[in-house]
Amino acid sequence: MKMPHPSLITLTLLVMQLSSTSGGKILVFPLDGSHWINMKVIIEELHARGHEITVLRPSDSWYIEEKSPLYTSITLSCRGGFKENFDTNLSQQLEIRLQMKPGHFWSNFWAQMQMRGVLLDQFFQFHKRLGDVITHVFENEDLMQSLHADKYDMVLTDPGIGGGAMLARRLHLPLVFNVRWTIQGEAHFLIAPSPLSYIPFTATQLRDKMTFPQRLKNVLSYFMGMFTLSYITEPAYKPIVRRFFGPDVDYSTFFLDADIWLMRNDFVFEFPRPTVPNVVYMGGFQCKPPKPLPADLEEFVQSSGEHGVVIMTLGTLMSNLPQGISEEIAAAFAQLPQKVIWRYTGQRPNNLGNNTLLVKWLPQNDLLGHPKTRAFITHGGTNGVQEAIYHGVPVVGLPLFFDQPDNLSRVRAKGAAVIVDIAMLDRHIFKEALMAVIYNSTYGNTMQTLSKLHRDQPMKPLDQAVFWIEYVMRHKGARHLQTHSHKMSWFVYSSVDVFAALLAAALLATLIWIAVVRFLWRTIFSGRKTKLH
Amino acid sequence: MKMPHPSLITLTLLVMQLSSTSGGKILVFPLDGSHWINMKVIIEELHARGHEITVLRPSDSWYIEEKSPLYTSITLSCRGGFKENFDTNLSQQLEIRLQMKPGHFWSNFWAQMQMRGVLLDQFFQFHKRLGDVITHVFENEDLMQSLHADKYDMVLTDPGIGGGAMLARRLHLPLVFNVRWTIQGEAHFLIAPSPLSYIPFTATQLRDKMTFPQRLKNVLSYFMGMFTLSYITEPAYKPIVRRFFGPDVDYSTFFLDADIWLMRNDFVFEFPRPTVPNVVYMGGFQCKPPKPLPADLEEFVQSSGEHGVVIMTLGTLMSNLPQGISEEIAAAFAQLPQKVIWRYTGQRPNNLGNNTLLVKWLPQNDLLGHPKTRAFITHGGTNGVQEAIYHGVPVVGLPLFFDQPDNLSRVRAKGAAVIVDIAMLDRHIFKEALMAVIYNSTYGNTMQTLSKLHRDQPMKPLDQAVFWIEYVMRHKGARHLQTHSHKMSWFVYSSVDVFAALLAAALLATLIWIAVVRFLWRTIFSGRKTKLH
Repeated sequence: MKMPHPSLITLTLLVMQLSSTSGGKILVFPLDGSHWINMKVIIEELHARGHEITVLRPSDSWYIEEKSPLYTSITLSCRGGFKENFDTNLSQQLEIRLQMKPGHFWSNFWAQMQMRGVLLDQFFQFHKRLGDVITHVFENEDLMQSLHADKYDMVLTDPGIGGGAMLARRLHLPLVFNVRWTIQGEAHFLIAPSPLSYIPFTATQLRDKMTFPQRLKNVLSYFMGMFTLSYITEPAYKPIVRRFFGPDVDYSTFFLDADIWLMRNDFVFEFPRPTVPNVVYMGGFQCKPPKPLPADLEEFVQSSGEHGVVIMTLGTLMSNLPQGISEEIAAAFAQLPQKVIWRYTGQRPNNLGNNTLLVKWLPQNDLLGHPKTRAFITHGGTNGVQEAIYHGVPVVGLPLFFDQPDNLSRVRAKGAAVIVDIAMLDRHIFKEALMAVIYNSTYGNTMQTLSKLHRDQPMKPLDQAVFWIEYVMRHKGARHLQTHSHKMSWFVYSSVDVFAALLAAALLATLIWIAVVRFLWRTIFSGRKTKLH
Repeated sequence: MKMPHPSLITLTLLVMQLSSTSGGKILVFPLDGSHWINMKVIIEELHARGHEITVLRPSDSWYIEEKSPLYTSITLSCRGGFKENFDTNLSQQLEIRLQMKPGHFWSNFWAQMQMRGVLLDQFFQFHKRLGDVITHVFENEDLMQSLHADKYDMVLTDPGIGGGAMLARRLHLPLVFNVRWTIQGEAHFLIAPSPLSYIPFTATQLRDKMTFPQRLKNVLSYFMGMFTLSYITEPAYKPIVRRFFGPDVDYSTFFLDADIWLMRNDFVFEFPRPTVPNVVYMGGFQCKPPKPLPADLEEFVQSSGEHGVVIMTLGTLMSNLPQGISEEIAAAFAQLPQKVIWRYTGQRPNNLGNNTLLVKWLPQNDLLGHPKTRAFITHGGTNGVQEAIYHGVPVVGLPLFFDQPDNLSRVRAKGAAVIVDIAMLDRHIFKEALMAVIYNSTYGNTMQTLSKLHRDQPMKPLDQAVFWIEYVMRHKGARHLQTHSHKMSWFVYSSVDVFAALLAAALLATLIWIAVVRFLWRTIFSGRKTKLH
């Protein structure tokens, strides 16, 4: 059965009612890397709608261009070398990851601890550098004065870095987050009640239905995770907050004080969980219908005939692999009747099949939206997974770091992905996973259903995001959507004091009751005794 | 600063993408009284969009018409007399309410208990009757067969009654709630985490910022309220569920299992609080731009000149008042320079001023939207308050029963209403309240701000509601938006077992530690002793 839809007339009237021509002034403090790719999608849309955008970028930025038709940039000087460090850390993590074979509990535990150490160091360096950047901004009085003088309407930032929220506070501007992670972990855990009985904590790869041991693991992971995070971010940001905002200011309140949280996920992707009114879900906002492929690529795709093509890419951070693994992958690909397009910048495997095309870059969205695409092999970055859902392409996951195992475990829980452990990968296992996803129609059908659900929203995610950014500018914030929760201490929030008072009252009442009964008992008893004697 | 808006083209494309012509089949099990007025707004819209609607109505319904161009009705036989009982109960409650003067703690406490008794009886009768209705439906095999045979796409009901959810379960149909209250209390308290430290419980008239005694009151009210509610609804519905669904089925799971909850409020009206993904806020969905008034009424309104008019109505349940009170109100009105339109069906007060027009019915929405309207005197029903917010008219509240005190305390907390205690009402107090709201511009300005916020939404609330109803039909439910929480027992949900296990483990570890230390101590000590001797 198909349904009619809100009439065009009503929507037209709504649009006309809210439309206007003059633009706002937005100060953007982005996070580099894949997060910038996301932010740029929003900036493009804001620019198209007539807003004036200023982007703060570090001088050694990986991706954030100094010159752009979309925005004016302000470059903040940084001592370089960060990207190199980051890459070294990633390689170390991959090396450790490859040693972790199933069934070796203690050696895996040890590897996990080592990996956590490298990751902590990486995150610590990362936030230390970002802390330096925002310190430079605050110290630069000319810059601060000109930022004040420019009279921005709001700050748009990624709370995966701490500087944007601090800058918004310093400039007294409304604040909107483009968010997947914050400096204090996954965003929902900070702002929405997240019962650990059915909300899997970050990096546990658990789902919303958990056994008792899984729930135990979840609770322990939560406390360990929150402790670790505070260990990373406190030293990076606390001294800055103390210096520029005063000794009594808690740095975390800045982040909890955002007007709107634009979340880069939705409940087709994420397990359903409690949320709060100032959270807007815009998962898949970067997805769009495919554009035609370049002629040579289209020709290669068409040459696959009825078998179709398989796409493989491991994202912006990791585009090559140890030779041994890439050869196993190549061998598996060579046995497929499909054609394969593989984004790979490492050394060309010797055993590469004729059906496999190695490329340095691929038009991911256009390829995923191609009718001949049968499967997507991904590391499980949020963007890739969202695009696979949008286009309804089933997934073989090769998770490496960060949120990748969690992202993929969500798609697997829904029945649209097979995950391969990279440490165990050989040509047979990999081929088996590919064959399952390509030839067992439940994976494809499930992904098609997810795609339909994801696309069926009252408003497109990107329009939704821009609506709320403009809303914050129209109303100078969105305080009425902020819950009162983060203005309370944890013990008030959790009513510990109230329950303690009730318990004390109950105890007191019991004691009085016992005393009265004893008194009455004694009176009667001693009275009797007297009589008896 | 004004903002441009999502382009018309994008929205048009979205509409075209989702539009279709064929309609769905919807079975509606409504709640009578003012709730039906709400439901009818949605039915009108669904009818206009080509859906086929069937309404189940009791034979002694107050408002639900048997014949309508909007729907087919199925009449369920009821022993009558219910409305009379309900009205008698209301009069009793008003009588008790009028005795409650501030400052008389114990007599007020006693009155409150009496009132609670009457209310409990009223609710109990109400649910008993609704239980009888659904029992008749289930017993009527012909009816059940024809309902099965009709192949509805979904059930739309108000969870203020229990029958709709049961019927949906019995017919294996997706379920959508049009909800403000449920048979187990306020909806959020059932489905979303609602920390009692900042979420005021029903009928407490508290706000989201609470002192310690207020939080104590809130916690006690919660436990008392939930206990009372179970006392009312369990006897009414539990036996039916046991009889028709089996002895082990918990009747509350039916209600928690709805696919979408269309909430008749929003966060301009309600304090911001946690929510869940399958809740959609459609507060004010019944509001619309004003139509021109009938000629005579328009003439009366225009005769008010620069002073404008004041509107008074106490809703569908209570349109007259004890003579003493209505005379005080009339006296206050007579002293105003404004004209007054007063919906009143009781005996005409002797002292009615020339500026006051008594009417049996008034076009509330059109009057509230009239530019000459200066203030709205209301009992504080949800509909009236939402319409006042929509049209930006400040409020003088005269709360009587049910959710009315809470509704008005929310508007007061935001600074757009003055509340008058009906037991204390005299001409001076009432006039003072009116003058404040009319001449102190903060009330009007605040209401104008609330109005702007309320109207600035990505989609109109009614379109939003219909979108999600059609969504449920398109996808045969919305299970992926339901949190896993209500499939868990309370102790699993709250991780009591996990924390108990952790505590036990910690205790055990401590005991082992003590034992080891004691053993070592003794060994060393006794060794020394031996040496010393």
